[in-house]
Amino acid sequence: MISEENKLVLADFKVGVDNVIFSVDTQQNRLLVLLIKRTDHPFVNQWGLPGTLVRKGESLEKAAHRILAEKIRVDNLYLEQLYTFGGPNRDPRESPDSYGVRYLSVSYFALVRFEDTQLISDNLHKTSWYMIERIPQLAFDHNEIFSYGYQRLRSKLEYSPIAFNVLPELFTLNDLYQFYMTILGENFADYSNFRSRLLKLGFLLDTGVKVSRGAGRPASLYRFDAEAFAPLKDKPFVFV
Amino acid sequence: MISEENKLVLADFKVGVDNVIFSVDTQQNRLLVLLIKRTDHPFVNQWGLPGTLVRKGESLEKAAHRILAEKIRVDNLYLEQLYTFGGPNRDPRESPDSYGVRYLSVSYFALVRFEDTQLISDNLHKTSWYMIERIPQLAFDHNEIFSYGYQRLRSKLEYSPIAFNVLPELFTLNDLYQFYMTILGENFADYSNFRSRLLKLGFLLDTGVKVSRGAGRPASLYRFDAEAFAPLKDKPFVFV
Repeated sequence: MISEENKLVLADFKVGVDNVIFSVDTQQNRLLVLLIKRTDHPFVNQWGLPGTLVRKGESLEKAAHRILAEKIRVDNLYLEQLYTFGGPNRDPRESPDSYGVRYLSVSYFALVRFEDTQLISDNLHKTSWYMIERIPQLAFDHNEIFSYGYQRLRSKLEYSPIAFNVLPELFTLNDLYQFYMTILGENFADYSNFRSRLLKLGFLLDTGVKVSRGAGRPASLYRFDAEAFAPLKDKPFVFV
Repeated sequence: MISEENKLVLADFKVGVDNVIFSVDTQQNRLLVLLIKRTDHPFVNQWGLPGTLVRKGESLEKAAHRILAEKIRVDNLYLEQLYTFGGPNRDPRESPDSYGVRYLSVSYFALVRFEDTQLISDNLHKTSWYMIERIPQLAFDHNEIFSYGYQRLRSKLEYSPIAFNVLPELFTLNDLYQFYMTILGENFADYSNFRSRLLKLGFLLDTGVKVSRGAGRPASLYRFDAEAFAPLKDKPFVFV
């Protein structure tokens, strides 16, 4: 029960979900984030993270998937809850002469491969991939949410197997290395160290199939073995 | 602006903060969690995590600190946001014939030392430390929130220096080992490995002061060197 006294004291909220959707373009060695140009107040015409307000009966995660499905088409993705930004005063709509309702943002971060992804754009809603080095001033506290997401992405990559949610089922070790390098930067590790560390961990299965790409020697295709990884799950554990 | 159409569709929320407060009792090798006996509906008389609803003008973190300060007195603590549980249907008060308002829970986890901590109890509100092996069926989805917090605690301990927010400024390596062992279990690492790994990481400063405890040889007192740790921050990195 909410007592009469509490009714006066407790804040009322709308709950938004904002997605930091990263896309890895290994061809051009770019890490991108999805931005939308806002068509509504506040911050109309400014870029921001794709977001939505949670509807009656809708779970937070469902809202996160809804906004994602409205903006991009993609088969393989990794999505997890990031952080909740609760203000007060993170949204100008909260001003007391406005609705007196607070806007809380539960943020999610998603990871996709650029080449697997199609943007859904229409004339009304402008959607664009931005290189993370060139992100403009965003609406609300979205620059902060982005930074938080970027940090999480980098650290997740280092101790959990999220790359394998996003890579195709079969990949070369060089594909994997390119993927890591695009996110972590060129100097994150040298290829032969990366290769030998990963193979030693025992969850990459050599399928025996070789593939030729460009001028180099044919390379083996590997597969991620979730069962072999299971005992390592939630262990302190380092990929790179 | 919220359009008239959206007003019908969007969910209204109250936002709760629920704290998973862990306490480490190295004397008796116990890991404890703070529970309160509920005095209000729903789940009256059932144990649950200490929580509160967020007030007008109050930040989430401030609400987390408020509930903590109402239940325990403590000097050193570590507190961070855990996860947001958003339902729907996680709270029986959400039933449509009730208020039609959803209850979202932003959970926080806190870590304290048992011996630094004093419970604040009164006759009305029963508060108790429970051994984590003996947690009863809790109100709402609080068992799930607890489990999430327990997992985060264990993994945080393994890659970040949260122990040093909670330990006294000067400690022996054995104090630190006991602290880890109480949380991670007796078999997490053997003492001499633990000792040599930590010293090699270079952020524990030997103060030169020795202390005698019980029958053993005098042991050196160490201090955590935040500056020496800084380059390791957010790196993939393993304590244990």
